[in-house]
Amino acid sequence: MNALRLASLNGDHLGRSVISAGNVRFGEDFVVIAGPCSVESEEQTIKTAQEVKAAGANMLRGGAFKPRTSPYDFQGLGLQGLKILEKAKHATGLPIVTEVTDPRDVSWVSEYADVLQIGTRNMQNFSLLKEVGKLDKPVLLKRGMYSTLKEWLNCAEYILSAGNPSVILCERGIRTFETYTRNTLDLSIVPSVKETSHLPIIVDPSHGTGRLSIIESMSLAAMAAGADGIMVEVHCRPGEAMCDKDQAMSPDMFGGLMKKLTVLGSCMNKLNGKSPHRLGAGEP
Amino acid sequence: MNALRLASLNGDHLGRSVISAGNVRFGEDFVVIAGPCSVESEEQTIKTAQEVKAAGANMLRGGAFKPRTSPYDFQGLGLQGLKILEKAKHATGLPIVTEVTDPRDVSWVSEYADVLQIGTRNMQNFSLLKEVGKLDKPVLLKRGMYSTLKEWLNCAEYILSAGNPSVILCERGIRTFETYTRNTLDLSIVPSVKETSHLPIIVDPSHGTGRLSIIESMSLAAMAAGADGIMVEVHCRPGEAMCDKDQAMSPDMFGGLMKKLTVLGSCMNKLNGKSPHRLGAGEP
Amino acid sequence: MNALRLASLNGDHLGRSVISAGNVRFGEDFVVIAGPCSVESEEQTIKTAQEVKAAGANMLRGGAFKPRTSPYDFQGLGLQGLKILEKAKHATGLPIVTEVTDPRDVSWVSEYADVLQIGTRNMQNFSLLKEVGKLDKPVLLKRGMYSTLKEWLNCAEYILSAGNPSVILCERGIRTFETYTRNTLDLSIVPSVKETSHLPIIVDPSHGTGRLSIIESMSLAAMAAGADGIMVEVHCRPGEAMCDKDQAMSPDMFGGLMKKLTVLGSCMNKLNGKSPHRLGAGEP
Amino acid sequence: MNALRLASLNGDHLGRSVISAGNVRFGEDFVVIAGPCSVESEEQTIKTAQEVKAAGANMLRGGAFKPRTSPYDFQGLGLQGLKILEKAKHATGLPIVTEVTDPRDVSWVSEYADVLQIGTRNMQNFSLLKEVGKLDKPVLLKRGMYSTLKEWLNCAEYILSAGNPSVILCERGIRTFETYTRNTLDLSIVPSVKETSHLPIIVDPSHGTGRLSIIESMSLAAMAAGADGIMVEVHCRPGEAMCDKDQAMSPDMFGGLMKKLTVLGSCMNKLNGKSPHRLGAGEP
Repeated sequence: MNALRLASLNGDHLGRSVISAGNVRFGEDFVVIAGPCSVESEEQTIKTAQEVKAAGANMLRGGAFKPRTSPYDFQGLGLQGLKILEKAKHATGLPIVTEVTDPRDVSWVSEYADVLQIGTRNMQNFSLLKEVGKLDKPVLLKRGMYSTLKEWLNCAEYILSAGNPSVILCERGIRTFETYTRNTLDLSIVPSVKETSHLPIIVDPSHGTGRLSIIESMSLAAMAAGADGIMVEVHCRPGEAMCDKDQAMSPDMFGGLMKKLTVLGSCMNKLNGKSPHRLGAGEP
Repeated sequence: MNALRLASLNGDHLGRSVISAGNVRFGEDFVVIAGPCSVESEEQTIKTAQEVKAAGANMLRGGAFKPRTSPYDFQGLGLQGLKILEKAKHATGLPIVTEVTDPRDVSWVSEYADVLQIGTRNMQNFSLLKEVGKLDKPVLLKRGMYSTLKEWLNCAEYILSAGNPSVILCERGIRTFETYTRNTLDLSIVPSVKETSHLPIIVDPSHGTGRLSIIESMSLAAMAAGADGIMVEVHCRPGEAMCDKDQAMSPDMFGGLMKKLTVLGSCMNKLNGKSPHRLGAGEP
Repeated sequence: MNALRLASLNGDHLGRSVISAGNVRFGEDFVVIAGPCSVESEEQTIKTAQEVKAAGANMLRGGAFKPRTSPYDFQGLGLQGLKILEKAKHATGLPIVTEVTDPRDVSWVSEYADVLQIGTRNMQNFSLLKEVGKLDKPVLLKRGMYSTLKEWLNCAEYILSAGNPSVILCERGIRTFETYTRNTLDLSIVPSVKETSHLPIIVDPSHGTGRLSIIESMSLAAMAAGADGIMVEVHCRPGEAMCDKDQAMSPDMFGGLMKKLTVLGSCMNKLNGKSPHRLGAGEP
Repeated sequence: MNALRLASLNGDHLGRSVISAGNVRFGEDFVVIAGPCSVESEEQTIKTAQEVKAAGANMLRGGAFKPRTSPYDFQGLGLQGLKILEKAKHATGLPIVTEVTDPRDVSWVSEYADVLQIGTRNMQNFSLLKEVGKLDKPVLLKRGMYSTLKEWLNCAEYILSAGNPSVILCERGIRTFETYTRNTLDLSIVPSVKETSHLPIIVDPSHGTGRLSIIESMSLAAMAAGADGIMVEVHCRPGEAMCDKDQAMSPDMFGGLMKKLTVLGSCMNKLNGKSPHRLGAGEP
C-alpha cells in the first residue's frame, strides 16, 4: 500500500511518486504555480488568476492565512479569502494551493483547497503535519529555512506515516549570512532529493531570493537542476501588494518567464530522453 | 495596563518585568529549572524532581509532548505525563514548566503547568502563540534556532498583544556551521535582550550545547552575562534517558553546578550592587 | 582606462567585461575548465588533460600549491607541478589555471599560468590580492565560503585598483548548516553579480557540492542561471585521486556532461537572442 | 620536545601550555589585552596605552597593518605604526601584540612585537602560518569567522609543526544570520578548546559583538566560561577612531570593566580552587 512507503528511498524499485491535483500531475509535468502572496480582494485575485492562466500557469496560489513576523501586520482574510479562491478557481479552472497554519483549520480548509501548503515556519509543527496526514489531498511541504535535507524528509514522513502518501516538497531558500538575497535558494537540494526520495520537489524562487530581478534566472536554473515545478508570486498590480511587494512579478514579467520556460522545457526533455511534457495549463 | 506594553522597550521607564510562577520570580531571582527531557515514568520523574529540589533547583521541567525529528521516535506520554508531573509537584513543591505544541491542548495543559513552554520549532507557530496569549499563566518562549532577536521579540509580541503580559524568553542555541556542539549557544543575546526589552531571559545550555562536559561552564557564563536563570536537563539515571541522553546531567553533576552558581551568584550580586538574591528553592 | 573601472557597476554603460586567456574569452563564451584537483604526476596530468580536451573542455585546471586543512596532508608538488602543467598545455593546447597562495610566488607562478587562481581561503588575503593586481594576467577570484556579495566585489576591487582589470569571479559554495552537501552552492549569486558588476562569473559545482552524483545537475543549473562557465574536477582515475576523491568526475562522466551542456547551450543562446556561442575547445 | 606536541590533546598528561610574553603568562594568569584598533598617531597610541595600563591591562594591542574590506579604507601606518608601538611599550612597560598579514613582513615585524597576531581572514593563510611557525615568539591565532573547532586546531598545528609551540587561540565571533551583533560570539568554544587542546584561549568581545553596550557583559561571561583572557578595543577618544569606532571603549568604560573583572576573577579562583591569580599588570 502506497501510504506505508517511506519518504526516503531505501533501494526500492517502485519509481518516483506522481501526485495529482485536478489535471496537474506533480512528478510528471513541470508544474507552474502562480498567484498573489495573499488574497486581498475578489477583483485582485480573479484578475491575477486570469492573467497567470493566460500566460500558461497550471495552478493558482494565494494565501488566506498569512503567518506574519509581526502581529500587527495583515494576517489574511481567512474564510473570506478561501471563498474568493474558490471563485477564482471557477473562473479559470486552475486548481488551488493555499496555506493552512492551524490543525483546527485543516478539515474545513481542505474543502476549498486542491493542495494544502505547510509553510516554512510550520515545517516541524508536528500537530499540523499529523492532521494533514489524515487527508486524502496532496500537501505541499515547504522546507524550513533552517532545515537539513534529513529533517525535511522526516517531516514528510510524519505525513506519510499518518496515511497520506501525497507530499510535494518545496525548496524556498535557507537562512545564511548573505543579505543581498532574502534567503539563499539551495538548488542543490533538488538533485539531492531526487537521489534520496521518490517525492516530487518544486522550487519557490520568489521567497527563495526576495529579489524580483533574479527570479527569472533562478526559475530557469531550477528547471535545469531537475525540479518538478516552480511556485512564483504574481500580482496584477505588484506596487499595491499587501505583502511581499518587492518580490511580486507583474503578469507581463510572468508571461516572459513562461515563454522561456517553454523553450527550456523542450530542451530538458530532449536531454532526459523524455517525450515533450506539458508546460502550461489548458493543453490537451 | 500591563498587557498593552510592547515586548520592545521604547524608551519607557516602567522598569523590567518580573514574572511570578509559584514562589519563583523571573526577572528578580536567578531561577534554576531542572528536570528530565521527557517524563518517562512516575518513579523516574519524582526521583529526579526530589534530587534537583535537594540540590537547590527552583522549578521542575519535564516534557509530556515531545516534538521529535522522526515520527518513529518516542513522542511523550501526553496526559499521563502531565499527571505524573502533578505528582512530582506535590512531592517536592516545585512549580512545573512543560511544553505545549498544539493550540487544541493549551487550555487543559495549562491546568497542570505553572509555566507553558513554547519550543524552538514552534516559535513562529502563530496559532499556538495566540492561544497561550489568552491565558493568565506565564509562557516560556524559546528562541527559534534560526531566529533573529527582532523576530523573537515579535513572537513575544504575539503573546503580549493577545493579552498575556507574562513572557519569559529562553535562549537555547542557534544553528550554525559548527558541529562540535549541537547548536551554538548565543550568550550575547542576553545583554541584547536586556537593552531592547523588559522581559526576563533565561538560558538552556543543555540544548544550547548538546555536550554534557561543557554545560557547567556555559551555565556560569550565562549567569555572568546577566541571564535571569538557566534551564538544564537532569535525569536520575542519565544512561537510560529516552531522549537527549548525551546532554542529561546526573544529580551529582547538577549538585556540583548548583554549588558553583551559588558562589558566583553572590559575586554577581556584589557586582550589580544588589542585595544577595535567592538561589535555590525553599530559601526564605 | 580599463584599470580604473570599479568592480561594481555604477550606472556606467561600458558593457560587460570580456577577459581573454589564450583563445578563451570569459564573458563571451561559456567556458569549461576541467582537470584534477592536484597535479600528482606527469602521466596523470597529461592523460587527464587529453581526456578533458577530447570531451570539449576549454581550459585545464590543476593545483601545484594545495591549501589543505591539515599540515600533514599532501601539499602539492610546487614548481615541479607547474612544469607538469606546462607540458600538459603543450600536449593539448589548453590554457592553464592554477592556484597561487603566497605573494612571494606570484611573479614566477605567473610565468606558467594563463590564469592565476585565488582560493576561497585567500579571498581576503589582501597582500596576495595586491600582488596579483600588479600582473597583466587574468585572476580567477573564488568567493570566500563565508563571504557576502559585497565583500567579494571589494576583493575584486583590491585587484582592479592595483592595476589589473582582468578578474573572473568563481562561486564555489558557501558554508551553511546543511551537511548533505559539502558546501551550499549559491547559484543566486550569478544573476546577483550580473546586476551589480561587469565582471564574468563562473561556477565550481565540484567544491560547491562535494558530491559527485549532483555535479551534472548543478552544472546545467549554473548555465541556466546565466553563468559564464564552470570549473569541474576530473581525474583520469578518480579512485586514486590524492585529494577530493569523492568529487572527481571520470572522463566518461565529464564527456556526458559536455554533451548535455552543448545542447543546453544552444537553448540558452536562443533564449538570450544570441548567435550560438562556442562551447568546447578546438572550435574555430 | 615541546615543539612536537600536537595542538589536539591525545590523552597525554603533559598539562596545559603556559605561554609567556614579557611578564605575562597566558594559560596561568587571566590576561587583559587592550588598545586601539589601529595605531593612528604617537599621541593617540601612547595616551591610550597609559590609560589602559593605569586601569590594569597586561598588554597593549594596536594595528599597524589593517586588513580592510575595501581597498579605499585606511590600511594602517605600517613600519611607522610599529615604531609608535615600540615607544608606547617603553612608556608603559606593556608588551605588544600586533597583526602581521604578509609572510614577507614576519621577520621584521617580529622585532617590534612581543606577540604576533594572525587575523580571522588569515586563519587559513598557510604560507603565513608556516612563516610564524619559524619564530620563537608567541602567536595569537584568531578563529576564522567561518571556522570549526577542528579546522582552527589544524591551523594551530601548522604553526606547531613548523617548530613554534607558542600559540594562543582567540575566539572573535563567527558569522551567522543574526544581524543585531556584528558577529556571534561563540563562548562555548572556550570549554570546547579546553577539553580538546592544551593551548590557552582568550576572547575578543569587541569584534565578537561589534556593539559597545554589551562588551562588558560578554567579557565577564568569557571569564566565567573559563577563558584565559580577553582582548578589547580601547581608544583615548573613541569618537575619533579611524576604524571600528562603534566598538571602541573609552578609558573610563574600560576602567569600570577592569574593576568588575577583578571581583569576578577572585570568585572564579575560589570556584576553581586556585590561589588568587594576577589580574592587571604591574603587580608583583
